[in-house]
This record gives sequence, structure tokens and C-alpha cells, in this order.
Amino acid sequence: MSTPDPTQSQVTPPAQGATAAKSYQPYVDAKWGLKNHWYPALFSHELEEGAFGSTKICGEPILLRRENNQLYALEDRCCHRGVPLSKKPYCFKEGMVTCWYHGYTYGLNDGELKTILAAPDDPLIGNASIKTYPIVEKYSIIWVFVGDADYAPIPPLESDLPPQESKDYAHYSPNLTDDDAIVLGIRRKGESNWRLAVENGFDPGHVLIHWKSPLVYAHDMAIPLGFKPTSDGAVKAFEDPDGPKGMMNMYPPDADGHSHYEPIFENTMLNVRASGGTPALGLRTSMWLPGVLKVENFPFPGITAHEMYVPIDDKSYEYWELLVKTAPTKTERDEFTDQYENYLRDAVFHDFNDDDLWARDSMQPFYENDVGFAEEKLCAMDAVIVAWRKLVARHARGIQTPPMELGTKRRR
Amino acid sequence: MSTPDPTQSQVTPPAQGATAAKSYQPYVDAKWGLKNHWYPALFSHELEEGAFGSTKICGEPILLRRENNQLYALEDRCCHRGVPLSKKPYCFKEGMVTCWYHGYTYGLNDGELKTILAAPDDPLIGNASIKTYPIVEKYSIIWVFVGDADYAPIPPLESDLPPQESKDYAHYSPNLTDDDAIVLGIRRKGESNWRLAVENGFDPGHVLIHWKSPLVYAHDMAIPLGFKPTSDGAVKAFEDPDGPKGMMNMYPPDADGHSHYEPIFENTMLNVRASGGTPALGLRTSMWLPGVLKVENFPFPGITAHEMYVPIDDKSYEYWELLVKTAPTKTERDEFTDQYENYLRDAVFHDFNDDDLWARDSMQPFYENDVGFAEEKLCAMDAVIVAWRKLVARHARGIQTPPMELGTKRRR
Amino acid sequence: MSTPDPTQSQVTPPAQGATAAKSYQPYVDAKWGLKNHWYPALFSHELEEGAFGSTKICGEPILLRRENNQLYALEDRCCHRGVPLSKKPYCFKEGMVTCWYHGYTYGLNDGELKTILAAPDDPLIGNASIKTYPIVEKYSIIWVFVGDADYAPIPPLESDLPPQESKDYAHYSPNLTDDDAIVLGIRRKGESNWRLAVENGFDPGHVLIHWKSPLVYAHDMAIPLGFKPTSDGAVKAFEDPDGPKGMMNMYPPDADGHSHYEPIFENTMLNVRASGGTPALGLRTSMWLPGVLKVENFPFPGITAHEMYVPIDDKSYEYWELLVKTAPTKTERDEFTDQYENYLRDAVFHDFNDDDLWARDSMQPFYENDVGFAEEKLCAMDAVIVAWRKLVARHARGIQTPPMELGTKRRR
Ligand code: FES
Ligand code: FES
Ligand code: FES
Ligand SMILES: [Fe+3]
Ligand SMILES: [Fe+3]
Ligand SMILES: [Fe+3]
Repeated sequence: MSTPDPTQSQVTPPAQGATAAKSYQPYVDAKWGLKNHWYPALFSHELEEGAFGSTKICGEPILLRRENNQLYALEDRCCHRGVPLSKKPYCFKEGMVTCWYHGYTYGLNDGELKTILAAPDDPLIGNASIKTYPIVEKYSIIWVFVGDADYAPIPPLESDLPPQESKDYAHYSPNLTDDDAIVLGIRRKGESNWRLAVENGFDPGHVLIHWKSPLVYAHDMAIPLGFKPTSDGAVKAFEDPDGPKGMMNMYPPDADGHSHYEPIFENTMLNVRASGGTPALGLRTSMWLPGVLKVENFPFPGITAHEMYVPIDDKSYEYWELLVKTAPTKTERDEFTDQYENYLRDAVFHDFNDDDLWARDSMQPFYENDVGFAEEKLCAMDAVIVAWRKLVARHARGIQTPPMELGTKRRR
Repeated sequence: MSTPDPTQSQVTPPAQGATAAKSYQPYVDAKWGLKNHWYPALFSHELEEGAFGSTKICGEPILLRRENNQLYALEDRCCHRGVPLSKKPYCFKEGMVTCWYHGYTYGLNDGELKTILAAPDDPLIGNASIKTYPIVEKYSIIWVFVGDADYAPIPPLESDLPPQESKDYAHYSPNLTDDDAIVLGIRRKGESNWRLAVENGFDPGHVLIHWKSPLVYAHDMAIPLGFKPTSDGAVKAFEDPDGPKGMMNMYPPDADGHSHYEPIFENTMLNVRASGGTPALGLRTSMWLPGVLKVENFPFPGITAHEMYVPIDDKSYEYWELLVKTAPTKTERDEFTDQYENYLRDAVFHDFNDDDLWARDSMQPFYENDVGFAEEKLCAMDAVIVAWRKLVARHARGIQTPPMELGTKRRR
Repeated sequence: MSTPDPTQSQVTPPAQGATAAKSYQPYVDAKWGLKNHWYPALFSHELEEGAFGSTKICGEPILLRRENNQLYALEDRCCHRGVPLSKKPYCFKEGMVTCWYHGYTYGLNDGELKTILAAPDDPLIGNASIKTYPIVEKYSIIWVFVGDADYAPIPPLESDLPPQESKDYAHYSPNLTDDDAIVLGIRRKGESNWRLAVENGFDPGHVLIHWKSPLVYAHDMAIPLGFKPTSDGAVKAFEDPDGPKGMMNMYPPDADGHSHYEPIFENTMLNVRASGGTPALGLRTSMWLPGVLKVENFPFPGITAHEMYVPIDDKSYEYWELLVKTAPTKTERDEFTDQYENYLRDAVFHDFNDDDLWARDSMQPFYENDVGFAEEKLCAMDAVIVAWRKLVARHARGIQTPPMELGTKRRR
């Protein structure tokens, strides 16, 4: 397959305007998200044994259920009259959920209409269903696969997560999927399209918004003004057919000392110099379909910050913020949990990441009617953004269509 | 006239999907309500002598006026610059209302422009008007006829209300229109389309939402899980050309003991049995165009619950809840009023009916863009819903068009 | 040029309906305002030395800057990713503003991209820009010229303000632009289209809403019910090619005692007579493109009330309320300021003008989809409104198109 080289664009400035947008058109069309991918639904601790939960992903309302240590995800919309089951879900019998309105009762594992409370011999029974979703629980999170009912085979969750690095890497930073990894975090709603959130997460040029963060002051972090790509290797694309698809900003020099980025410490016209004395060791950022960020060695060496941006609808996303550390022993786990609860949660997720939240919201009006994709004026640092858009265009397993309630054909 | 038999569908499951929806297309089109029908506007006690009031019905803003014991209803929109007269209505002269903005003054009974406060000889006077509405006050309620200006003859109010039953009926329950009936009630706004409210009111399959009502516990009400239609007589249609059009669920057996419904008390798959020891005596529900419910012998024998669902716009309705009892003497009236104010109002309208309110709201997104009519999966119990839709399609005097402000042609 | 005579319509009633609307079609199209005109942006005191400010005019977001006693106005939307610069504007170097997100840095006077904080040698530098706006500070207000980038020459501010009257006029009332004029006022948001606000400001028939104002009672103001135009001179149009374009209601008689208006003091049908004993001396109202009202000798002789209605978007406007007095000495200025702060501000802007605010809002639904222009029923007093609409249709320098974010082509 002759695919365009996404890294090529790193050394020449990206093309501008409506014509450029055509080169990654599926991305422009993906306002409601990418389909046939795994998304996080809830933290494990948010769904106790015997409980129901709910969420909305890519415009699809989803009911979650934990019963006898099994997990189930179903369309959160009764096929009868369309109400959300989650408003008052009933369980009259194991393995089933009954709608609170007229008693339509579905099998948790297949979504089929098993009975109707007050009409046990109705001919519709066995002939109607709601959608079900593949679901797994891993890494302290409950994940669902949102996509076409006939999509097969369902790829493994790990195909939609950052891959584990070789532990040989000098600045090894743990991955969500590592053995002994402890995963702590929060989730909340952001008021912009998911793509703007992803692009912010992976954006090499947005350092300025974090200058005034207490975290930066507290640790005297040395952040360059920005990074100038100097070689084709500045961004590395991962396109192994069997593995996760993603891109990495190669900020640190190679093992052989070869650099792909030149950190910019000064702008003489503006008379601005980067401040801070402690350089980040092994900080490296990568983004993975369908929108999972990995920031290695952040905020400190040996900790990885993961972020996920899950489309809720076309104007909002669920913002997942995780901190991951390898902690094989209970003492180490307790220590990291203690550090997280008393310092890192506020310092990273709020003091620092809050600025990303309002920055993303600020782009929304410009992009809301797709005008921004044609009108934006990108600079060389944005080549990685464009490369990401093209990577998505090449590797997304599908583009989500607007939800049924808006008048589009039913998705099953 | 060869009309389809609405009761026929009671014993076969209703057809599904977009094709079925075509069989009652005018109903699908009636998002803004039915026109050329009578609707309740205010309770009598809400409009005192000398007062102005206002409401909105089927998208039309209406000004109400009681003057010298006469009632008037006019378009609540000045023909001059379109402002609502009700924001600050002036009466400078009997029989007229003057707009607060530039003094356009209309005759209350004909809506004609009689004078302009500051331009008494303007040529427009006598050549402009606002719409007027037939209005009557009966049964403690002020009613207006919302429809085409040239619709004639105006049918009697009683053609849009449930008919009186013969008092010979063993479980006679009073009608709104009965002599000596005392009518007590409230009205409030519901956030769904009026059709979803009507269908809920008349829905034989929604018993489940009322299971936990204090009213049910307090009186140990025996409610079956649901009712299975077993004969063509399960739903009786009333289509007398001169009378009100409606449908009745024949829950109680006929006088000769013949039953049209089989109450369902158990669902063995779910291992659920109906509870409650006191069977409802003579409980019977019927629905009448343009959307008036009669529930006989509810909450107790000898009391009738009426409900009305009046379209405000395409996404909300005015929910009228009435309790009616025959009370010929002052003592009986006082007694019922006392029982209403201290117990029934809360127990029926809030503890019980509040669950209907949120149930209706829950259907709104699914039906908002008409998607629900094509996607719903109805069961046999819903045959009465479909029969109602067809009844409306056959007998509605007209389908309301969206309001003028949305760009449609002026209605006069 | 053979222009229709706008004053002619003063003695015959205005034409009605959709056809009439065609005679001033550009006005109906001007939902987003008139372009290529001067608009007030901020009061001078609202933008201190070294400060940034922002506003939105005719749908365009505008950043304001005072630096070294120079004023600048630029598009408040970064050309990079579209965020508002005003959310957190940075000044790293005199004469420039830097975007808080990725450091795009623009020249304040030309809007050109001068540098990018972290990419000082990016090829985009010098090849991108944001729009700039002509800006002047006069009469205690900062004004910007909102229009096409290539519009030239920029007309003087005074071409968009009421002209100074000859001081020979018996009831001379000061103008905003007069030497020694002191200008005091407020601004706030109104929730209607700007045209409805302008028409209310200049409306000879809306006296009724002010009847109950404390100002009227306090000064026993004699206000007629209205004014009946009796000659072609009732409304005087100002259409000098080089001067401001406007219209004046000639309420006071000419110097020779000739009257063009007959004040109406009584409506016999309604048995209403005007009240108040103190006649207004020299009260005269005029309206000037793009929407500046002058009310001479109001609330008292020697004081002029100016109002401006600046389109924010298609559904709201900035309402500017000014009181102007000639006060050559510090004592006189202090005296007027004192009177303003302790009495006039509340009495005129709130007690009196608040009624105009809700009156304008009340018209909005009727006109929102342009339905009102076809459906309104105007009377003879409205001839001045229609004449204004035609004046705008003849003299507006341009009609603003909807903003870029809504999908229209970029304005530059
Ligand atoms: S809506 Fe769920 S059972 Fe009817
Ligand atoms: S809007 Fe009613 S009189 Fe003018
Ligand atoms: S959005 Fe302004 S610099 Fe990027
Ligand atoms: Fe960030
Ligand atoms: Fe109910
Ligand atoms: Fe006014």
C-alpha cells in the first residue's frame, strides 16, 4: 500500500485552507467521532456489583450493568417507545433488564426482547432487540466497543491503546497496560468537539497556556517556548496493520544523540526567553486512535499521564485524565495513591489541565460549522496536527453518523 | 362511509414501522395539535371580573378577558407591530382593549380595530383586526375554540368532551358535564409533545410506573400487570357523526359477564405477580378528541378523573388534571372539596400523576423529529394506541399548521 | 438622482404588507446591521492606558487596545485556530499583541502576523493577518469603523453622527459633537434586533408606554397622545451627499409659526385626554444613519438625549444612552455631572427608558423571521418609520452579511 508519508510534512509548512482539508476529508466528517473503536465508559469503581450505570458515546446512549461480576452494555433506549432504560432500570430476573415503562425485558447479553412484563405471550417477544456493545474491564476502567453491529472480528482493546514501550528505553515511562501499573484519574465534560480536544492534547505549540501553572513554578520546570522539527524523524508514525495506530513527537534525542527537534528557547523580536531551570527528562508525547494521549515522564520521571477524549455528541466530549505508575507492592501503591490524592490530582488535573479545557472550548465556535478547517492558518509546528488528521483519515475503522433521533437511519 | 375498523387491530399485533405510520399520516403531521376543536384555557376562578388573562394553545397566543360577566378571547398579538397585548393590557372603554404600545384599540367581541389612541381618524381604523375565538364557560372551566376563522358552524363544546353515560350502568361514574358535578383540579406544563401525553393517558400497558405510588399502597389497590385484549370488543370506538369521537377500553366485563380483556396477573419468566388486595370496581378508561381522558371510578368508586393535554407548542402541552364527583348539596360539595384539598390533590395529581409526567417527557427525544413513529416496536397492548391514531386521522376537524412567526402564512 | 420623496408618505397612510417591504428591501436584509459605518465601541473611560477591551459589532468580534495613548482595533479572533485574543491578551512588545494559545503575534496597527512566539522563523510570518478597524476617540467615546477592508476613503466619524444645529435656533439644544459638550451615559444590551430598537427610538406613536414614568409625573410633563402629520414638512430628510443622512420629526412649529404636526390631545371614543401641565419646549427628534437618535431639549430645555443602537448580532443590540449639555466651565461640568449621577441617570435611563427596552424586546418574535415586515399593519403615524426604512435603503453604505462562523465567506 502506498500511503502518504505523514512525517514528511514535518519539515515543510502544512498546506492551508479548504483544499488541504480535502486531503483528510474523513476527519472533517468525523464530527460525531470514529466508530468501530473502543472507548472508556466508566471507571471500574463507578459501577458496583448489582448496579446500573449510563453514558453517551459518539451520540449513542449506553446502559451499563454489573451483575454477578459480569459486565453488560446495551443501547440505553427501549425499542418500544424510545425511553432511556437508565432512568429507572429494573432487574426482575438475572441476566435481564426490564424497562420501567411497559416492562419490555431484554437479555443483557444479546439485547433481545425476552418477555414483556404484562404480556408474556406477545408475538413481538423474540422479534425485537436493542443494540449490545462489546465490553471489557481492564486497567481500572470499563471499556465499550462502539460501532456497527456486524463489525467483526472485534479487535482487542489494546489495538486502541498506546503500546507498551520496550523497558530498554533509557527514560522508560509506564503504560496504562503495564503489569503492576496503578491507574488513578478523573473524568469530566468538555464543551468542544472531541477533535479539538485531541489536537490540543497533542499540540507541540501550546506551551504558552501552561506558563503560569503552579506546577511549573513549584518544580521550576524548564519548558522551551516550543519545538522546531528539524528532520523527517520528528514525528514517528505507527501504522503496523495489527497494532495500534498513532504518532509520537520525538522530543528527546535518539539513543545515539541524534535530535529531530530543536527546542526554541528565545524569541528575539519579542525579547522573550524560556524560564525554569529543571529540564524535563524523557518527556515524550504520543497520540493514538481513537484519541488516547500518552505523555511520558510527566509530571515527573516515571509517571505517565494519559488523556482520552471521548465524543459525547458533536459539541462535547468526556475528558479522561489518568496518572499511571508502576507500583508492584502495596506500599508503593499506597504511596502513589497518597501522592495523587493530596497533590497530583489538583496540581495536574486542575491547576495545569484546566487551562487546556478552556483553550479547547475557545476553538469551538470557529470549527463548529467546519469553517475553521478551511480558514485556519497553520504554521510548521502544526504539521503534526495535520499528520494526525491524515493518520485518522487513513486508519479510522469508520466515521460515526449523526444519531438516529436527528433523523438519520437507525444504526444496528 | 367505509371506515377501517379500529377495534379489529385489538386482537392482532399492530403493524410496525414507517409503513404503519402512513396509515394514520394526519396524526403524524399533527405536531402542533388539532384545529377546529374546543380546548380549556383557564379555570373559571383564574379570571376574575375585570381581569385579563392569557394562554397559548396550538401555538396561538390568546388574550382572555372577563368584563361585565362576559368572556372574550382574542389573538394576543397586536396587528400593528406584533406585541402581546397581555403584557400590559389597557381598558379605556367597555368592550375594548387597547394595546400598551401605540394605542391600537380592538373590539373585544369582533377583534376589529376601533380606534387608535393618538390617531382617532386614521384610515386603518375599521380596516384591520385580530382574530377572535369562540369562548364558553362551563364546568368550572373557560373553553376556547381554536381553529379557522371561517369554520362554521362552531360545534358545541360537548362534541369535544366525553359523553354522559347512562346512569343505568352498574358502576356509574360521573362525567364532567353532569348536573351537580363538582370539578376540582390543577393545570401545569409538561415538556413533551401533546400526542405523547395523550397516548400515555390512555395507555393500557404502563401500569408499572405506578406500582410504587403511595396511593396504591395506601388503598392496597389490586392492579393487574396489564390487560390482554381477547375480543374485538376490547376497545369500543365512538364515531357517531353528531357526537364526540372517542375510544373506550372495556376493562370491566359486560353486564352479561362477557369479558373483552383478560387481566394478566403473572409473568412466570420474571417470576412477578401483581400485588394488592382491593380490586378496582368499574375502572374504565376512555379518550376523546381532541385529547380528553376519562377514568371512571378512579381513584375510588364514584369519582371520575379527567385529564386534558392541550398543545402549547410542538414540544410542550398544558396538563389539566380534574377530579369530578356528583355532589348535589352544599354539604356534599364541601366534603368533597375538603377531601380534595387535604388528600386527593396530592395523592392523585402529585404522588401518582407525577410519574406520568416524567414518563412522557422521556419519550420526547425519540419522537421529536418523527423518528419514533417509524422506529417504535409496538406490542399487542398498543393496538389501542394505534386505533387512537387512526381515529384521530379519521375524525380530527383539522391539523394545525406551525405558527405564523415561524414563517408560515398568517392564520385568520 | 431621482429619489422618492420620503416626506410624501407623511400625509398618506403607508402601504402595507409584503409589497411595501419590497420598496425598502435592503433594510429587510440588514438583520446583521449596516456595514461601512462608524459605531461606538466603548466609553473612553472603559479603556485605560495599557488595557485591552473587547466588543462585538454587527457580528464581528473586536479587540481594543490603548497603548502609549494610541488606540487600536483588531479582529478578536486569532487567524491560527480562531480563538478570541481578548480571553487573555499578551503584550510582549510594544505595538503588538500575542495570542495566548500558540503565540501568534500581530502588529496592532496592521494586523499582520509579525512573529510566532515559539517559531520565530516560520514561513507563515508576514503572510497572514487579522482584520483591523479604523478607530477614533471623540466625544468621550471610542468609535470603530466596521466594514469592508477595501472600503475607501474612510468617511469622517461626523458623517455618521447628527450634525450640529445652527445656534440661531430658538430652542438650541447641544449636539454630541459641540465644543464644550459634556457627554455622560451608559450602555447595556437589548434583546431585539437593532432595527426594532431604532424604530422605537424614533417612533412618534409610542407615547403611551411612558405615561406612567416618574419623570413625567415629577415634572408634570404635558405629552400629547400623539402627533398627526399635517404637511409634507412634518418629516424633514437630510440627504446632503457629503453630510450625515437622517430624518427629523418637525414637532415644534417653524420660526414663522407654521406647524407641520397637529398634536392630538384627546380621543373621544375612548374618553382619554392628555394630562400634564408643562409643555415640552423645543422637543424635536431626529434619527441618523447608522442608528443615532437625537432628542433635543429632553428631559429639560438645554439638554440633549442621544441614543445609539449598535447591532451585536441578529437578535441583540448594544443600547447606548447619552445625555449631553454644553458646559464650558469646570463648575458647570461638575454641576451637570452631579445632576446626572444623582438624578438624571436613574430618572431618564431607567425609570423612563426601561419601558422602551421591554417594548422593543416584545416586537422581536414577530420580526425574527421577517414575518413582521409583511404582516404589520401600519398607520399614518408610522409613515416616518417607513420613510426611515427607505432612507436606510437609499443611503446605507453596505448591508452586513452573517458572520463567518455561520458558514458565510470570510470578510476581509
Ligand atoms: S418504552 Fe420501554 S417498555 Fe415501553
Ligand atoms: S404594537 Fe400595538 S399599538 Fe403598536
Ligand atoms: S490560536 Fe492563536 S496562536 Fe494559535
Ligand atoms: Fe496542555
Ligand atoms: Fe398513568
Ligand atoms: Fe421611548
